[in-house]
Formats: sequence, structure tokens, C-alpha cells
Amino acid sequence: MNASVITIGDEILIGQIVDTNSVSIARHLNSAGIVVREKVSIGDDREQIVATLARSLAASQVVILTGGLGPTKDDITKKTLAEMFGSELVCDPVVSAHVERMLAARGIEFNSLNRSQAFVPAGCTVLFNAHGTAPGMWFEHEGRIVVSLPGVPFEMEHLMHDEVMPRLKARFALKSIVHRTLITSGLAESMLAARIEPWENALPSYLKLAYLPNPGAVRLRLSAYEVEGESVACEIERQFEALRAMIPEYVVGYETASVQELIHHALTAAGRTLAVAESCTGGTIASRFTAMPGASAYFRCGVVSYSNEAKTDLLGVDPDAIRRFGAVSEQVARQMAEGVRRVAGADFAVATTGIAGPAGGTDEKPVGTVWMAVASPRGTVAVCRQCGTDRGQIIDRAASFAIALLREELSKN
Amino acid sequence: MNASVITIGDEILIGQIVDTNSVSIARHLNSAGIVVREKVSIGDDREQIVATLARSLAASQVVILTGGLGPTKDDITKKTLAEMFGSELVCDPVVSAHVERMLAARGIEFNSLNRSQAFVPAGCTVLFNAHGTAPGMWFEHEGRIVVSLPGVPFEMEHLMHDEVMPRLKARFALKSIVHRTLITSGLAESMLAARIEPWENALPSYLKLAYLPNPGAVRLRLSAYEVEGESVACEIERQFEALRAMIPEYVVGYETASVQELIHHALTAAGRTLAVAESCTGGTIASRFTAMPGASAYFRCGVVSYSNEAKTDLLGVDPDAIRRFGAVSEQVARQMAEGVRRVAGADFAVATTGIAGPAGGTDEKPVGTVWMAVASPRGTVAVCRQCGTDRGQIIDRAASFAIALLREELSKN
Repeated sequence: MNASVITIGDEILIGQIVDTNSVSIARHLNSAGIVVREKVSIGDDREQIVATLARSLAASQVVILTGGLGPTKDDITKKTLAEMFGSELVCDPVVSAHVERMLAARGIEFNSLNRSQAFVPAGCTVLFNAHGTAPGMWFEHEGRIVVSLPGVPFEMEHLMHDEVMPRLKARFALKSIVHRTLITSGLAESMLAARIEPWENALPSYLKLAYLPNPGAVRLRLSAYEVEGESVACEIERQFEALRAMIPEYVVGYETASVQELIHHALTAAGRTLAVAESCTGGTIASRFTAMPGASAYFRCGVVSYSNEAKTDLLGVDPDAIRRFGAVSEQVARQMAEGVRRVAGADFAVATTGIAGPAGGTDEKPVGTVWMAVASPRGTVAVCRQCGTDRGQIIDRAASFAIALLREELSKN
Repeated sequence: MNASVITIGDEILIGQIVDTNSVSIARHLNSAGIVVREKVSIGDDREQIVATLARSLAASQVVILTGGLGPTKDDITKKTLAEMFGSELVCDPVVSAHVERMLAARGIEFNSLNRSQAFVPAGCTVLFNAHGTAPGMWFEHEGRIVVSLPGVPFEMEHLMHDEVMPRLKARFALKSIVHRTLITSGLAESMLAARIEPWENALPSYLKLAYLPNPGAVRLRLSAYEVEGESVACEIERQFEALRAMIPEYVVGYETASVQELIHHALTAAGRTLAVAESCTGGTIASRFTAMPGASAYFRCGVVSYSNEAKTDLLGVDPDAIRRFGAVSEQVARQMAEGVRRVAGADFAVATTGIAGPAGGTDEKPVGTVWMAVASPRGTVAVCRQCGTDRGQIIDRAASFAIALLREELSKN
């Protein structure tokens, strides 16, 4: 079964926000065996909404829209849907009471704009939004489903999980989609592809292989769409095992787990602890670990030692080492990792120090030069990586490379 | 002038990655006065690429595609474009030499897959990709422009900046788009809308107002499209000033600067310094500041004090306060802010401690409870905020609220 996702809002088209809603919606649909064939972002424009929805309905049995449901004039999705489906807007008393209660709790007056949030097209099924004032709406139209959800990511997410997915599962007999992902590290995409080419060429037509390169890792994803019956499910497992057996030395994990998730599980299972000292990555490594539920079991502390004083005072880095070798050096990276490991009383520590730019580069140490170190019970290792030329990219890559180095050391301990 | 953006890749449709490419492309086009009317994401599927490109070409003078240019079998964009434009693939010697050199530097062998990167459709203009192996391609087709760029964000970004935008500016006489954004804080979206309603209703038709609510801030964006001549540019300034004058007490900034950018500029200009102590936000506040070029001028250090020991050992929080009031408490938040301010010798410090969940909540302190504090030369303030029920949302909101509190204190000092 096919679906289309439409996100509505001028702020998407001018690049003011990143659309994460369609990512989450695609994940939900995919995990239930619904193939997302297209995602479209359009502006708060009546004609475009009408045309895009009509086109999507011709190609997909399910269309999910988000956005354009706010109380203000620029939001026109609800009005447009009511017109398209020939129904008038009527007040829903449950939503009205909910909106009034929510606003009272926040000390916001219940004015005509907020009251309009409780009006929905007659004939649609209201999807109750416990976390916000704009309700979701479920329309059935000539055997197809149109769902309109608010654009606030958190509200949309709850409505997808609590309302939309259970209803879709009850309404349709869904076939499953199976994805199996292998995470590799240490072999470039093209060399990996050359190595597995004969196997890839011989894959049955219902299996699709995708390469997903990331800094420090290449993922290989094997997908079977619209799987029915046991035989296909067995075949994907058989092919996945054949793939794994071709490159065992490069396999570092499975599924879509990120390298930090692999470390998260390994540390949790082993009851070991982690500390982080960051200069150029500025808290990115710490935030990647602490974003995962349960990180407090092993994450002791992070120090963002941006200034030289922070390096010496908080981590015990030798001021003389900074003077002699510079803050971006093997010696300082090692001392940062060892320092934070000692201060935190942690089993493992990872550290970064580099030049994120745009200023601060020299001929010898150009922008993008990053030293990273991992201290563990086995001792300390340090590596220098060139992480690019763009500040955001350098921070992101340096964090990824440092986390990959940590995983490597973790596997040896 | 209109443009469409097409991002190609199954990984987008199954929700495996967040599409940031189209955001960046939209920003580039928008700033040059090109209106993005639609963004579409489709899979690595020949028929869909052909149909979507044909449809986009009917509506837009410029179509930018990204993705599907890798060396592996799942990437078919280049082949499909060559077929659509009736040209064969020919080897580009400059690209070929570049790819070979790049791979040699990385110790990757130059095999037939990599060699295929140097093949481009005859008749297209090659856009040299200094940062990767897949070149960009520029096609002219019946007076319309089709540009195909690699999907690696960093490579795409450089090609947009260095190659695509200069060529578009040279090729077309572009009208400008003017956006003016006012950042407000302290008044809910609906109350703001009620307050400015008469003004909004009287806006001339070529000016469009949008509400962009965020945790801790609502942005009001006034846009004029396809502006020609001085009068429109003057009118948007006049209306923007009228808007500002209606709500002066809620205006905290201008343009699309985030609150952390406002603080960044204020601290840099005043020569004052900042330190951060984070528990539940886990490095997110530090990473938001350090993501900005020049942050090292004021950012002293951050401490991610996840464990109680880190709070006491690194920040000098009184263990007795943790025992009596709990780690998530006003007392601990205050001591964290004061501690990191003292340790770092900084002028300002911000701290967070809360329950990010999903576990750890109690009746008295449910998941989402976050205490935040700001220590400054004027003393310390602390606030408790309920930041939601979802871990990612709680981290994000708590960081935003804490940064908003910092801005408030900064303005008083």
C-alpha cells in the first residue's frame, strides 16, 4: 500500500525550518508496511494544497498532511480541506472545552482566534490532540484516507502514534516491509561495492540494496517491500547473512543503530562508565550520548573545555604542553582524555581538540585539523583527522570520528 | 521566478535521514529572489524521477535535484537525466583525474565504480566538486535550467554557493524577495495575533505575515515577493516599524537570529564571558553556542554534570543540598550556575537540571520538570519549567528556555 506525505508551510519553502515531521511520519508508515512514494512540501496556498492533494490521492491510498492548522490567518489548511470535501466548519464541543482548559492553565485568554481551533469540517473524524490546541482530522474520501495533523512536531508525533497508526492498522490489511541494515566501518563505499558486486548482481528482484555513507561508517540496507509469506522473510535473512559473511572484519553493528547507540548498549551491558572532554566539538559528543534514554547509567560527565584555562583547571592539562605543542595537539588531546577520565572516575574517556574555523587555521594546522584521544584501562590512543573546511561539518565529523575511535577501543577492552 | 527542489533517495522516504539539503538550497534560492514553490522527495526510481522532473519543469524555470549520484548501483539519477535529455554518458578527463587524486589521498583504489563518477551526460556543463567524487551537472532544456547535485550535504552546499548561485544570477534578471522577521517573547501566538489584527487586516496584498512559534519565542515574518522598485522596499520597512511599535515590550530581536545568536553578539560586543553547567540538557546548550563561529571569544567552558559526583566534584554543589532537595531542585540549579561561573571565572553562567525521561519521574517531579538558573554579576535567578513528556522535546525546550532566561538576565545587566 502507498502513501504520500504533504507538509504545508511557507517557512519550509524559504528554508527557515528543517522538516522533521515528514521523517517521523515516514518512519511510522514504513514500520507498518506502508510505502511512502513521495513527500511534498508546499506553501500556505489554497490552489497548491488542492492540486497537490488531488494528485496525491490519485497515486496513494493514504495521504498525511501536516501544518497550516494554527489559529492565525496564514494557516488555511482546515478551510481548504472543508471546501475540497464540501463540508462546513462546525464547533466540536470536546475540542472547545479542551482548548479553553489548556489556555487557562497557561494564562492565555480564550479569544475568537483560539475558539476557531475548535471548528472542524463536518463529517471528518476528530483526532483528539491532548498536547495542543489544533485537533487532527481524519477524512474518508472515495475509499482513500486523508489525515490532517498539526505541524508542531511533538503534537503530530503523538497523534501519529496514538490515533493515526492504530486506525490505519484497523482499516487496512497491511503487508510488511522488512529492512535489515549492516553497519560497516573501515572500507570505502566503492571498495565495499566492488567486494560484494557478484552477490549484489544475483539478488532477487524484490530485494533492494542501498548504500548509506556517513563519516566513519557505511551502512548497507537490504529491503524487501510488500512481503507476504514466510519464504521472503527467510530469503532476506539468508541474503543478509551471506552479505555479512563476505565482509565480517568490517561489520561493526546492525540495524539503524548509530555508533553511539552501539556504545550505549555495550557500556550499559558491561556496567562501565564514560566521560567526555570536548574542545572543538563543543558539547556535541555529550549531547549525542545524553539524547539516549538511560544514558545516566554510564555517562558520568562531560567537560566542554573551550578555553585553555578550562583545560588546565578542570582537566589538569599541563599548561606547558599547551604552550609547547599548542591546544590542538596530540599531547593536549591525550591529557584531556586522561584528565576527564581521572576527574570523573570513569572507565573510558574520549576527547577532542581541533580547529573548527572559520578563523584560527595555520599552514601547519589548517581549519579542520582535529586531534582526538580515547583513554581506557588499556591506555590512551590518539589520532589526528582532517574533518573538512566548514564549521558545522567539522564539528559533526570530528564528533563521529571520535565516537568511532571510542568504539574501536571499547571492542579491544 | 519560480524554482522546484527535488531530493532523491529511498533513505529519505523511509525516514532514515532528515533532509537538510532542500533547506539549504531553499535558503540560497530565496536570498537571490527565487521563490521555491515546491519541494519533493522521491525514491531512487527511474519513472518517478522522470515524472517529477517533467512536472516540475512545467511549473518552474529552475529545478534543482540532489542525490542519487553515488558510484553504486542504487544511484540512478545521472543515467536517468542522460536518457531524459537524450545524451550519452562521456568521460570528463578533469573529473577523472580529480577522482583518482582524491581516492589516492585516502588510500582507496581507483576501480570501475569510482571511474564511473567521471562519466557525465554529453552536453551538460560540469560543475566541479572540489570536495567529493560526484560532479554537479547543469542542463539547459527549452529555456529552463536543471541542476543535479550530489546528496552529501557539504558537497552540495559548496556547489550551490560556488557554482549554481553565480550562474543563476548571471543567467536571469532576478527580482528580490524581502523578509523581515521580528522575534517576540512573553506573549502567546493567539494573543499576539489578537493584538495586531487590525494592522494585519490592512496589509497590502503583496505583503504576507507569518507566525512562527518556537519554545520561548514567537517570530513574526513579514515577506514581500518579487519586489520591484523602491516603493515596495520602503513599504515593507514602514509596515515592519508599525508592527514593532505595537508590541515594543515583547520584541527581543530581529531577523532570523536565534536567541543564542542574539546572546552571542551581545557577549562579543560587551567583551563578557559565559559558562554553562548542564545536567538534563546534556551538552545541547554548549553545542548551540559553540556551533557559532567566534564563540571562543566568550565561551569559557561547559560542564555536563550528569552524575551527582560531577555536580559536587566539578561544580562544588553541596552534597547535602542534593540529598535534601534532590538533584532536580532550585537549590541545585542555583549552585550549578554559581559553581560553573566561579570555576570558569565567567561573567554569566546558565545551568539546567531536570528529568528528561522516559524514566525517573515522580508525582511531585514528573518527567519534563526542569530547573534552570542563571548566575550573573547581579546575582542568581532560578525558574522551574515543565518542558514536555518526550525526551528529545524536553532536552530541546529546556535548552531554549534556559537560553531565553539567560537573554533576559543579560538585558538587565
